[in-house]
Amino acid sequence: MIKGNDPILLTPGPLTTSLETKQAMLRDWGSWDVTFNRMTASICADLVEVIHGGATHVTVPLQGSGTFSVEAALSNLVPRDGKVLVPQNGAYCQRILKILKYLGRAHVALDLPEDRYPTAAMIEEAFAKDPAITHVAQVHCETGTGILNPLAEIGAACARHGKGLIVDAMSSFGAIDIDASAYPIDAVIAASGKCIEGPPGMGFVIARKAVLEKCQGNSHSLAMDLYDQWTYMQKTTQWRFTPPTHVVAAFHSALGQFKAEGGTPARGARYRKNCDTLIAGMQALGFRTFLTPEVQAPVIVTFHAPGDPNYNFKDFYERVKSRGYILYPGKLTQVETFRVGCIGAIDSNEMRNVVSAVAETLKEMNVTKIAPLRAAA
Amino acid sequence: MIKGNDPILLTPGPLTTSLETKQAMLRDWGSWDVTFNRMTASICADLVEVIHGGATHVTVPLQGSGTFSVEAALSNLVPRDGKVLVPQNGAYCQRILKILKYLGRAHVALDLPEDRYPTAAMIEEAFAKDPAITHVAQVHCETGTGILNPLAEIGAACARHGKGLIVDAMSSFGAIDIDASAYPIDAVIAASGKCIEGPPGMGFVIARKAVLEKCQGNSHSLAMDLYDQWTYMQKTTQWRFTPPTHVVAAFHSALGQFKAEGGTPARGARYRKNCDTLIAGMQALGFRTFLTPEVQAPVIVTFHAPGDPNYNFKDFYERVKSRGYILYPGKLTQVETFRVGCIGAIDSNEMRNVVSAVAETLKEMNVTKIAPLRAAA
Repeated sequence: MIKGNDPILLTPGPLTTSLETKQAMLRDWGSWDVTFNRMTASICADLVEVIHGGATHVTVPLQGSGTFSVEAALSNLVPRDGKVLVPQNGAYCQRILKILKYLGRAHVALDLPEDRYPTAAMIEEAFAKDPAITHVAQVHCETGTGILNPLAEIGAACARHGKGLIVDAMSSFGAIDIDASAYPIDAVIAASGKCIEGPPGMGFVIARKAVLEKCQGNSHSLAMDLYDQWTYMQKTTQWRFTPPTHVVAAFHSALGQFKAEGGTPARGARYRKNCDTLIAGMQALGFRTFLTPEVQAPVIVTFHAPGDPNYNFKDFYERVKSRGYILYPGKLTQVETFRVGCIGAIDSNEMRNVVSAVAETLKEMNVTKIAPLRAAA
Repeated sequence: MIKGNDPILLTPGPLTTSLETKQAMLRDWGSWDVTFNRMTASICADLVEVIHGGATHVTVPLQGSGTFSVEAALSNLVPRDGKVLVPQNGAYCQRILKILKYLGRAHVALDLPEDRYPTAAMIEEAFAKDPAITHVAQVHCETGTGILNPLAEIGAACARHGKGLIVDAMSSFGAIDIDASAYPIDAVIAASGKCIEGPPGMGFVIARKAVLEKCQGNSHSLAMDLYDQWTYMQKTTQWRFTPPTHVVAAFHSALGQFKAEGGTPARGARYRKNCDTLIAGMQALGFRTFLTPEVQAPVIVTFHAPGDPNYNFKDFYERVKSRGYILYPGKLTQVETFRVGCIGAIDSNEMRNVVSAVAETLKEMNVTKIAPLRAAA
């Protein structure tokens, strides 16, 4: 049993939500009830506006984690004879490739080092090499490292060549602008428990209506059939299958708070300040970031683990946790790292505090050599 | 905005949960954190005991609604060259057939009227007619009407003929005994938001370990790959993809309250008393149940709609709702009905109260002819 205040999650979803958001779960909702279904409709309308897609796009919510929505988007929006290019610079890009294998959809990876992003020139070279490519599946912010991929540039390349673009915006949605009115996007995918700061339990796909309308029969799965979910919802205002009612109500509350804060620009600015404060503090302790500042999204920061033989992550994690902060393990195979999230209902004070907690922990563990064992590539 | 107390849900999930259960959602959990993962492990261990399967079965939890878990169980546990017999007497049996179509698994329906259940003799006749059948997918309590199908009898028939048995126990699990030690069951499927009285948002498949071990590669979907979820969880104690942390914590709390109440026998007895109180009260008003008492599960009751021309469900629903009770529409195509759930954190007082609310509503609507337009078949 943890006494005192709950620990602050510095993890990239689940993350720390506001008390107001959690309190929205203190009520039971009937999923057939009009009051509940008005909340769903309001969520769907608000999410479309986040990507400036009100005139062109529709939101299809889906039960489950974000990955369920990624799989649903790929299976519904890529026809069975389509071929998907996946620029690959991290764990979530690899997950897309894994999903495409399950779905039996043709695909090709454009492999990059984890600290490099794909450019429009690389994408266009891949198009030229393989004209069978019909779609690009692009992770916006790759949570594995925290790298920000240049979506506008990639979107423009897709537009020039008439390729469909499916964006996994799991950890960027609501924090970094995505403009579906500036470049064509077939679908943007995110989830409740990320930068909108709701609890996890539902994802959503914001799809171009003209594309989604042609997707009947594409899905490999009843539960993940977005076309069916969308048409049923239009007809009845209800979810096809039991929605996570408490999560939906809390997400509705979180979305209201997001709008009140000032939407994507304000939220992005808060996270940017969190990120800058964190990096400055950690650098002052001697830590090095895995990414260079130019490619670092203000979402999650990967730090090289200290090279000191007294360091080990499990122990470090537990000691920082006992000081009230939950960190996140690294997701790189080549170098030892750990990650610290900058997102959630937190501000730069929390960032200063976690740096203090880290400093105290290192002292306690007698870790003095903070520089990594090996330099970054 | 609803003033005063929240309405009581007399719906078969989402249902009314206890305040203690909802309060468990007032905290954020890291999904990588050991404290959270101990809750998951405790849930999995407790669920296996509910079906007396501690020695033979394992629980695999899954994000999403119950239907996601039904689809996952069918795709993982029925090999790609299997054939499934589906005794069909309601909407959720039809949903299983729909899933099997998506999955491309061979199947055959044993169609029955919605107020009749399959017998062992019928099942054995189907086996004799079609030796290609490898599995039976049986809905235990068909929520479409509330009928209880004779699981032990069907389980014995499957055992005699060496067929696999997959049980959709969505609305019976925790209320009506299922004994995996008495007859072989490959999988029992249910969800958080039903008779364990948690919030909706996760399902689970309790699978025979010896069967699940052979299921690698069966799944059509990454997100719904139970084998992968199970092996990953064994290795790491974690969910593969972000779990609905708040829902998991509340479900953990609800499961503790379920055990404290006395498990399936006590919960079943409470629901039986709810059901008897409801039916007696409604019959005294002149209502007729769709099912005969012998086949009525103490979970949800289907009533014939009044034959009075002043009656319409929408109006009736809204007026009963304004008195604090949320009813459920009927799911039959042939006759007009409505349904009232007996499950959730409610007791027979609520049942007496809803009968009063219905009586007042009928008076207000000037509905006097309660007998249905047409008699039940």
